[in-house]
Amino acid sequence: MKMQKFAITDAVLDRSPGQKADISVGNLVDERHGGPITIGYGRYAPGQSLTETIVVDDVMIVLEGRLSVATEAGTVTAGPGEIVYMPKGETVTISTHEEGALTAYVTYPHWRPAHA
Amino acid sequence: MKMQKFAITDAVLDRSPGQKADISVGNLVDERHGGPITIGYGRYAPGQSLTETIVVDDVMIVLEGRLSVATEAGTVTAGPGEIVYMPKGETVTISTHEEGALTAYVTYPHWRPAHA
Repeated sequence: MKMQKFAITDAVLDRSPGQKADISVGNLVDERHGGPITIGYGRYAPGQSLTETIVVDDVMIVLEGRLSVATEAGTVTAGPGEIVYMPKGETVTISTHEEGALTAYVTYPHWRPAHA
Repeated sequence: MKMQKFAITDAVLDRSPGQKADISVGNLVDERHGGPITIGYGRYAPGQSLTETIVVDDVMIVLEGRLSVATEAGTVTAGPGEIVYMPKGETVTISTHEEGALTAYVTYPHWRPAHA
């Protein structure tokens, strides 16, 4: 695969299967492209919440808005330019408040086959 | 390792060894932490240029400013919220113009031992 640049307008955002909150993700690079990592954008509407056990190492970079991530060890809140690292095996609750959030994410390995 | 949040103020930015341009990077998560990926922030002064053959899969998310990345296939320019994916093996020239840039990066595997 060659070097590539992506913008949010390159992503096709959809709800993950089985996911009820108003949270949409769109992979730009994933298992279809032959590399080891998945890259994408995620959009979180205001007032949403999602609990998930992370099956891959997952890095979220907040681009707009703000979100909170809670584990049994505590809760962090991240805004623009901040990074949340969710190691494989952590159970996290990701929540938005009165504003939503736009994130970029990078995972190793690919999250979609790991979820299946 | 547990879930963690990072801000630019958490990073200690330094020039990479042997690197002459005014470009500093700071790992937040790397080979010292037991996971598979490196996470960090990079700061590029205006008018800098760096040519490198990428030895790991490297994802740069532009947080502030703007930078260009050139390969033999062409040049892309990325600004805030945009992502540049540099697959392992690509030779890239990263340049800033009249403004510098602040980036977040995620690599798989760790770039520091791969460089050594």
